[in-house]
Amino acid sequence: MTSNPVEVLTEAECWSMLREHELGRVAFRHGDGLQILPINYAIAGEHIVFRTATGSKYSDLLQDADVAFEVDAVSDETAESVVCRGVAVELSGEQALMTDQLRLRPWVATHKAHVMAIRVTEISGRRFHLTRPWEHMLPQ
Amino acid sequence: MTSNPVEVLTEAECWSMLREHELGRVAFRHGDGLQILPINYAIAGEHIVFRTATGSKYSDLLQDADVAFEVDAVSDETAESVVCRGVAVELSGEQALMTDQLRLRPWVATHKAHVMAIRVTEISGRRFHLTRPWEHMLPQ
Repeated sequence: MTSNPVEVLTEAECWSMLREHELGRVAFRHGDGLQILPINYAIAGEHIVFRTATGSKYSDLLQDADVAFEVDAVSDETAESVVCRGVAVELSGEQALMTDQLRLRPWVATHKAHVMAIRVTEISGRRFHLTRPWEHMLPQ
Repeated sequence: MTSNPVEVLTEAECWSMLREHELGRVAFRHGDGLQILPINYAIAGEHIVFRTATGSKYSDLLQDADVAFEVDAVSDETAESVVCRGVAVELSGEQALMTDQLRLRPWVATHKAHVMAIRVTEISGRRFHLTRPWEHMLPQ
C-alpha cells in the first residue's frame, strides 16, 4: 500500500513509458481554439515522430507550433500518464527517410506523406494508485 | 471489408462513445504553451463533468477557458476517437452537488473539491479501420 496515491515519475521513467507505447495525443492551437488528435508515434532520441496525411491541414498547423503531447495507460491498480511540451517541425530529406527505420507503424491504410517531429522541451509523468472506492461499496 | 479506412461518426455515436468511457484528456492554454491532463469524467446532458483538487491551479486555469477534450478506444480491428471543443466553467452550489448523482467515480484517493463542466460547442469523431500492415509481414 502506497501512502501517497500520486507518484511523480522520473524523467527516465517518462521516456521509458513513451518508448513502450505507440498511441498518444497531440494538442495544438487551431484558430481561436484548441485541437487534440490521436496519433501513432515512435521515439527517436528526444523527439516524438509521427506522420500526417498529404494535403492534411495539420502539417501546416503544426509547423513550428508549440504543442503538448500525452500518453497514458490504465491497469486495474494504477494509471500512468506522461505529458510533454515541445515544438513540432516537419522533417524532410534524409531526416524524413530515416524515420523508415523507426518503429513508426501506420495503423491505418491512408497515405501519410508528412513526417513531423516534436522536439520535447518539458516532460513529466505521474503514476496514480487507483482505489476506485465505489468497488468496495458493492455487495460482497 | 470497409473500402474507406476512416469513417466519420455521427453526433449521436460521438455522445454514445463519451457516455461509454470515463477516462479522457483535456487540453488548455497554460502560460505561453499548452497543457494536456488525463481526467476521469461523466456526461451530464451536453456537458463533460470532472473534478479537480482543492488548491489545484487547474480550476483557475480552466475557468472560462476554451478547451479541447478527447476520448479514444483501440481494439484489434478499429480505433475510435471523439474530439470536443468547448468552454470550461466551475460549478457551484446545487449544480456542483448534483454531480454526486452522476457516474463520476473518483479513481484516485485525493480530495477534489472543484467540480468543472465543459460546455461542448463542437463534437466530432472518427472510426479508423486498422490494417497494421506490419502484422501481415510476419512469417506465417
